[in-house]
Amino acid sequence: MKVTLISHTPNPDFVCAAAARTTIKMEGAEEALKTLDEEGAGKTLKRVMGKWHLSVVEHASFTFAIEGISRACSHQLVRHRLASYTQQSQRYVKMDKGQFPYVVPSSMKGKHREKFEEMMGTLAREYKYFLDEGIPTEDARYILPNAACTNIVVTMNARELLNFFGLRCCLRAQWEIRELANRMLVEVKKVAPIIFENAWARCKDIGYCPEGESDCAYPPKSEVIPQSPERQRKQSSEKQG
Amino acid sequence: MKVTLISHTPNPDFVCAAAARTTIKMEGAEEALKTLDEEGAGKTLKRVMGKWHLSVVEHASFTFAIEGISRACSHQLVRHRLASYTQQSQRYVKMDKGQFPYVVPSSMKGKHREKFEEMMGTLAREYKYFLDEGIPTEDARYILPNAACTNIVVTMNARELLNFFGLRCCLRAQWEIRELANRMLVEVKKVAPIIFENAWARCKDIGYCPEGESDCAYPPKSEVIPQSPERQRKQSSEKQG
Amino acid sequence: MKVTLISHTPNPDFVCAAAARTTIKMEGAEEALKTLDEEGAGKTLKRVMGKWHLSVVEHASFTFAIEGISRACSHQLVRHRLASYTQQSQRYVKMDKGQFPYVVPSSMKGKHREKFEEMMGTLAREYKYFLDEGIPTEDARYILPNAACTNIVVTMNARELLNFFGLRCCLRAQWEIRELANRMLVEVKKVAPIIFENAWARCKDIGYCPEGESDCAYPPKSEVIPQSPERQRKQSSEKQG
Amino acid sequence: MKVTLISHTPNPDFVCAAAARTTIKMEGAEEALKTLDEEGAGKTLKRVMGKWHLSVVEHASFTFAIEGISRACSHQLVRHRLASYTQQSQRYVKMDKGQFPYVVPSSMKGKHREKFEEMMGTLAREYKYFLDEGIPTEDARYILPNAACTNIVVTMNARELLNFFGLRCCLRAQWEIRELANRMLVEVKKVAPIIFENAWARCKDIGYCPEGESDCAYPPKSEVIPQSPERQRKQSSEKQG
Repeated sequence: MKVTLISHTPNPDFVCAAAARTTIKMEGAEEALKTLDEEGAGKTLKRVMGKWHLSVVEHASFTFAIEGISRACSHQLVRHRLASYTQQSQRYVKMDKGQFPYVVPSSMKGKHREKFEEMMGTLAREYKYFLDEGIPTEDARYILPNAACTNIVVTMNARELLNFFGLRCCLRAQWEIRELANRMLVEVKKVAPIIFENAWARCKDIGYCPEGESDCAYPPKSEVIPQSPERQRKQSSEKQG
Repeated sequence: MKVTLISHTPNPDFVCAAAARTTIKMEGAEEALKTLDEEGAGKTLKRVMGKWHLSVVEHASFTFAIEGISRACSHQLVRHRLASYTQQSQRYVKMDKGQFPYVVPSSMKGKHREKFEEMMGTLAREYKYFLDEGIPTEDARYILPNAACTNIVVTMNARELLNFFGLRCCLRAQWEIRELANRMLVEVKKVAPIIFENAWARCKDIGYCPEGESDCAYPPKSEVIPQSPERQRKQSSEKQG
Repeated sequence: MKVTLISHTPNPDFVCAAAARTTIKMEGAEEALKTLDEEGAGKTLKRVMGKWHLSVVEHASFTFAIEGISRACSHQLVRHRLASYTQQSQRYVKMDKGQFPYVVPSSMKGKHREKFEEMMGTLAREYKYFLDEGIPTEDARYILPNAACTNIVVTMNARELLNFFGLRCCLRAQWEIRELANRMLVEVKKVAPIIFENAWARCKDIGYCPEGESDCAYPPKSEVIPQSPERQRKQSSEKQG
Repeated sequence: MKVTLISHTPNPDFVCAAAARTTIKMEGAEEALKTLDEEGAGKTLKRVMGKWHLSVVEHASFTFAIEGISRACSHQLVRHRLASYTQQSQRYVKMDKGQFPYVVPSSMKGKHREKFEEMMGTLAREYKYFLDEGIPTEDARYILPNAACTNIVVTMNARELLNFFGLRCCLRAQWEIRELANRMLVEVKKVAPIIFENAWARCKDIGYCPEGESDCAYPPKSEVIPQSPERQRKQSSEKQG
């Protein structure tokens, strides 16, 4: 797997902070962009993001070239609909050298890995055989496995990336897309350190695991949130009275 | 492949026509819905749809249960982002009876089909072997082929369906998703005959093939649209003067 | 304000529960829909929604005719992008009887209300004057106020409705859109009691106010979530050991 | 009206061309980006965009600071849902100096303009009166007119911009949003000359006016597309036979 941030909105932290200022000021974002310094940008973004007002970070956009992930992984990836994708086509790209690149799950060890690789070799030969026999590329690919590699270009804005990391950095995500998400996170932190300062699985931000799993990094909701948080608070405010 | 329209907005033609009337009337859609008859609904929808004002048909929504399509096909399907999907999970559903359902491309005939089916049998055995050896389901599936069947529930509104048919009923779409699109079109025509009256590949509505292919049902753009349609018209209006 | 649910996916709870079952079963949604009873649907939806897996409720769609809200309110409403809108056009609908319907904020009382209504009367006369003088409708409307009423047809799926209620039933939302959201919630609860059983401002589901306001129905995050929920848990599990 | 392109994906033409190459090549976009020159980028983009394959230009994103448009115009603008907006809030920004900036339609001339401006002055005074009397800002704004100015930050990707220009550069769009669209088009042409080379109202690309209006720059569909384009073509191919 190779993950490269090939392009992005320049100065993402500043652009989003300037946009945020627009909502509560008479002057427009162009003026705000000129006068913002790093401290000001940080304060503004922390204030709005701390209140879960995330629409302002939609103004920063990030484009990744992703190479060598499996089609199993790309199928999960493209389910995120608020994003743009351009994927290598199995209908048009022949992998006809009698082999194709593929991903081996790390649970496949020793004899399992051998068997897995042997199977990949067989599939590559059969795929080439079908092509040689004149079967259309788009049909020969029906025997290609989920493990077959693909390249894909992905563009997401920072808000969708935060959501993507929230779901896919999670320990319950499959290992391949989790690795992808973690690598993407490393890249965007370099160029937008304020926006992504606390990005990770959503439990980190929420404070508990919304799926209520006990083997997660954060406690399940039931351990954190009282049965009736509303009542509890009324009682405590009565005490204050 | 089995395509069932399991649910949809009742009276889609009427609901969308009533919405359309809202834009140009003092009264609201509820009143319009009471007074519209079929002729009125037809006239209203033809008028607005004829002008490519398609937002009004977003109010009609259609839910399909789709069974027995290949993962190759579902991968193409879920690329349509203005839709909702719930798909059978290969991470959680074990197909461990030593076989899995799959799609055979019709270009695979005779000895090719035999070889293809033999290959599917081998993959099913290996998949079961991995499961029996304790490999997680989510990893064993890496050897499953694009041909493996999946079930998926899809909801699209009429505007996105028109776009989907426009792209996927096209003769240049792959045969499997074209069959899927055609079957979906048959179903929605039954319940929303006005909205989908002219639905098909987009060339039918546009009047030419925007991809400019010469083997399509409609002529390429270059045969239909003059080099400078704007100038041509100025000339013709001068002639009228 | 008048809010009417003019159309919706029939049996929304059942359709979404059937879709949810697709993910973990060999059989498709059509079969699931036949065999589900109310108890089964309730269990399935509570399980997946309890884990914040909300994509399944996207299959249920709801269409409202909304009449008599202000343009201030409709401007907030249409900012929700995962929805479909058809709005009465001020470019094409003349309100030329020397009056137009409008909304009076309840904070306008006594002399304030009188002044407000007097102002509306003046604006209506000026608007009619401009129309009578031949100013295009689309330009005369530039003097119409935010208070002017509009009609709008809105379609949202249940997932977006839950998000909409989460933000707009919130005590911090403006009174007019909060009233709209509460009325919409009453309507959908009647037809999809399971999906919307716990719907309200998002603090109810989260267990605290993510905006951290002290005058809300739920406590701010800082009162509920410890500074380092992750460490705390490790400690508490050590204590258990 | 002031329109500033405050940020955008660097080298938009190249990034999108590199993405386009991914679909039909073994190598990924990072490699393509290194080897592309301007001629190659131009050829690639013209080929795919000429076939209406527009998804590749979604990878280029553009952020505008827009100042001094009317709320009438911003209401039309935010109806484009595949975009990100951050708008000056009338709930939180008081314009309490006894005046507010506003837009005067050019159809308001001489005595009409005088009357219009007088009306704006009255509204500003009443608005300030309400604020001074303690009416909440969010309610006092109910008397503010559609003409009142707003600032807004808008981010759209190139595909949505093409669609936006297609609809809003159209002679049938209202003059204010048409001016906005034309100014935005001037800005993006400077930084993405290939992508936006032919951008304008959609009739330019389609070759006719899809709304069928006779007063447009392009002829109506009926003048260009024969009644049965499909049959016509069959006849012409028979002639060839």
